[in-house]
Amino acid sequence: MIPELTVTEVRLTPVLVADPPLLNTQGVHQPYTPRLIVEVVTAGGATGLGETYGDTKYLELARPLADRLVGRSVTDVNGLFSLDLAVDESRVRGAVDAGGLRGVQSADKLRLSVLSAFEVACLDAQGRALGLPVHALLGGKLRDSVEYSAYLFYKWAAHPGSDADEWGAALDPDGVVAQARALSERHGFSSFKLKGGVFAPEEEVAAVRALAEAFPGRPLRLDPNGAWSVPTALKVADELGGLLEYLEDPVLGTDAMAEVAARTGVPLATNMCVTTFGEIKEAFGRDAVQVVLSDHHYWGGLRNTGHLAAVCAAFGVGVSMHSNTHLGISLAAMTQVAATVPNLHHACDSHYPWQAEDVLTERVPFTGGHVTVSDRPGLGVDLDRDALARLHHRWATADGPLRDRDDSAAMRVAVADWRTPVMPRW
Amino acid sequence: MIPELTVTEVRLTPVLVADPPLLNTQGVHQPYTPRLIVEVVTAGGATGLGETYGDTKYLELARPLADRLVGRSVTDVNGLFSLDLAVDESRVRGAVDAGGLRGVQSADKLRLSVLSAFEVACLDAQGRALGLPVHALLGGKLRDSVEYSAYLFYKWAAHPGSDADEWGAALDPDGVVAQARALSERHGFSSFKLKGGVFAPEEEVAAVRALAEAFPGRPLRLDPNGAWSVPTALKVADELGGLLEYLEDPVLGTDAMAEVAARTGVPLATNMCVTTFGEIKEAFGRDAVQVVLSDHHYWGGLRNTGHLAAVCAAFGVGVSMHSNTHLGISLAAMTQVAATVPNLHHACDSHYPWQAEDVLTERVPFTGGHVTVSDRPGLGVDLDRDALARLHHRWATADGPLRDRDDSAAMRVAVADWRTPVMPRW
Repeated sequence: MIPELTVTEVRLTPVLVADPPLLNTQGVHQPYTPRLIVEVVTAGGATGLGETYGDTKYLELARPLADRLVGRSVTDVNGLFSLDLAVDESRVRGAVDAGGLRGVQSADKLRLSVLSAFEVACLDAQGRALGLPVHALLGGKLRDSVEYSAYLFYKWAAHPGSDADEWGAALDPDGVVAQARALSERHGFSSFKLKGGVFAPEEEVAAVRALAEAFPGRPLRLDPNGAWSVPTALKVADELGGLLEYLEDPVLGTDAMAEVAARTGVPLATNMCVTTFGEIKEAFGRDAVQVVLSDHHYWGGLRNTGHLAAVCAAFGVGVSMHSNTHLGISLAAMTQVAATVPNLHHACDSHYPWQAEDVLTERVPFTGGHVTVSDRPGLGVDLDRDALARLHHRWATADGPLRDRDDSAAMRVAVADWRTPVMPRW
Repeated sequence: MIPELTVTEVRLTPVLVADPPLLNTQGVHQPYTPRLIVEVVTAGGATGLGETYGDTKYLELARPLADRLVGRSVTDVNGLFSLDLAVDESRVRGAVDAGGLRGVQSADKLRLSVLSAFEVACLDAQGRALGLPVHALLGGKLRDSVEYSAYLFYKWAAHPGSDADEWGAALDPDGVVAQARALSERHGFSSFKLKGGVFAPEEEVAAVRALAEAFPGRPLRLDPNGAWSVPTALKVADELGGLLEYLEDPVLGTDAMAEVAARTGVPLATNMCVTTFGEIKEAFGRDAVQVVLSDHHYWGGLRNTGHLAAVCAAFGVGVSMHSNTHLGISLAAMTQVAATVPNLHHACDSHYPWQAEDVLTERVPFTGGHVTVSDRPGLGVDLDRDALARLHHRWATADGPLRDRDDSAAMRVAVADWRTPVMPRW
């Protein structure tokens, strides 16, 4: 192997990133979200970047992994997934990831979510060292830009006790349409996803209808994160019918998704029902989902995302991409892999427009709702060490609870008697 | 992109390779088999090698593809599969690939079989240019060597009108065991596959029993290429039971395979029932196959082979690898990709020991039944231009019919009234 590609150092930097008061069925985003920035340094002096969830349980797993990376080649990404990583089962047993809203936690999902940041950082380092963009390491791009949808949220004007943010409140159809217009004007998005499960279904149906009226013919999506019963999901599907590109996780679990899918023509998408390779067989076998929202974080990196897309292609299941609160490193990584997926026929989701802060020297821009696929070596983004230090300082000096995302806890700051909802809520 | 990685020239060299009189259910291998050697030359001076079927219909498709490759980057392998290649449908309509014994021909399979050689050649060139082995371009090896099984054939001592070859005849259990011993002694193989469908099933059952007695506890496989009816397949499965690692394509088509699979505990493997991504959904959904024998030629190259393995992993289906008459370039390519597949739990098949001729400066050796995974740049093999010229000269001066493999026609040279068998034969 090439000595210059050997890992000599791995730096882990937990950060807290400002996040607006975005509502979902579990509660509300905290004022800050923990993320972990991974830097992999090679003997040849290339530094690769990766990013993943920064909650304590992820950090606990990342630290021993970082030590084990030293001395390996950054080309050896398959081997990362054979590393025997001990996951503290107590961290995941029966836990629902309240912040991520991505189904029941599992040791495998936790492990892959950590590994993904190291895989991306290795690919970035490799690309920088070889002078190749990451997409070339994945077989080469099939498109020059990747389309994203506007990710609409019900939101408050401000976190409790803080000043209003630049976006203002969105708590009804007018507010949602105004937000869609603002995001569309700023970034050029032409498809729209509304995070639902916040208000009663009829209110969210009204919001989608208002979007359809304001943006005729544009692809629309509604995602209540499994907050509905099967009859409610069917009622919404019936009411919104042809307005929807797809309905995302209307209900929880393969049984319920299969039941809804069997009784509606509206395609069902998921990032909760199918989140690991182990969940695919049953869900696809029962036609429970028509679109999988891959997320390179919890599917275990960019190569696994490519494999997932191939599985979907073989079974005639569509592919889109999901993201959670993230920074520009992950947006660049998503864009690189998305450029290589032949069967990506839906705009990808990204929370990125909601993150005013980043750790990059330049933000990744949306142009006409698209991100240009960088041909620069690696991911094509550069770390701003001052920004990284600032966001890390915030993490280092934060109260313990802030270091773990908990949307229910954040909701209780404003609504003292808030209880994590029992699903289905409606 | 890196200018040095741009393709400046593509050389296509059809060759005829000596092949022993190996028997199968369609007939017998011709004295020579056509193969196509692809060389992709970059602006930086790297030359990548690929190899595929060399029959006329493949050459017809390869020539325009070669022209279109010039000016592209060797990193752009995903893009190869989007090229609009016109397949002459008359070449494939209803045709059974008699030589390949790999199910009904389709335009897609033909197209991918040609593209695969270009994909491999691009990866080889890329690896040579960057100083990386091909496995590193596929995410890195997971093992240092890849196990192969001994590929046993019923065979004549000689082609009609020729002298006996070094292996002699194998037409009964003793002959098969003697061949297994010879292959095992020479190459160290410790698992054995018998190409069946040649004699009545009871004779082949006796041969497998003789192998089990001679090599107790070793993995054994029997592959009649779909020559049996469902009752015959079930009878053989019942008789051989636990002696078999798997039974390969006992019957033709998903319906019959599913029926056999439902009624026996012997795992069924295939390289005839599932040969394209489009065939997976039904076959896996019906549990028709338990092991897929991937073949990078007709699955469309090394990246697609990785995707196929991921599909199999998600559905709990095993992976092994198939080969047809091939040279060292393809053995090196198989070995590189096999090294990267996590769920490869069966020894791979290779005809290579039967090919006394090659186009390499050094043959790829088997040691203890394994091929060492090369860490040299690219595939780790070098072209012997004199050998290539000799085998090409044989092609250039051959009678037209020799340029297309036809095992039934070869059989008619010895058995004038031989008719391509109607399946099932037994």
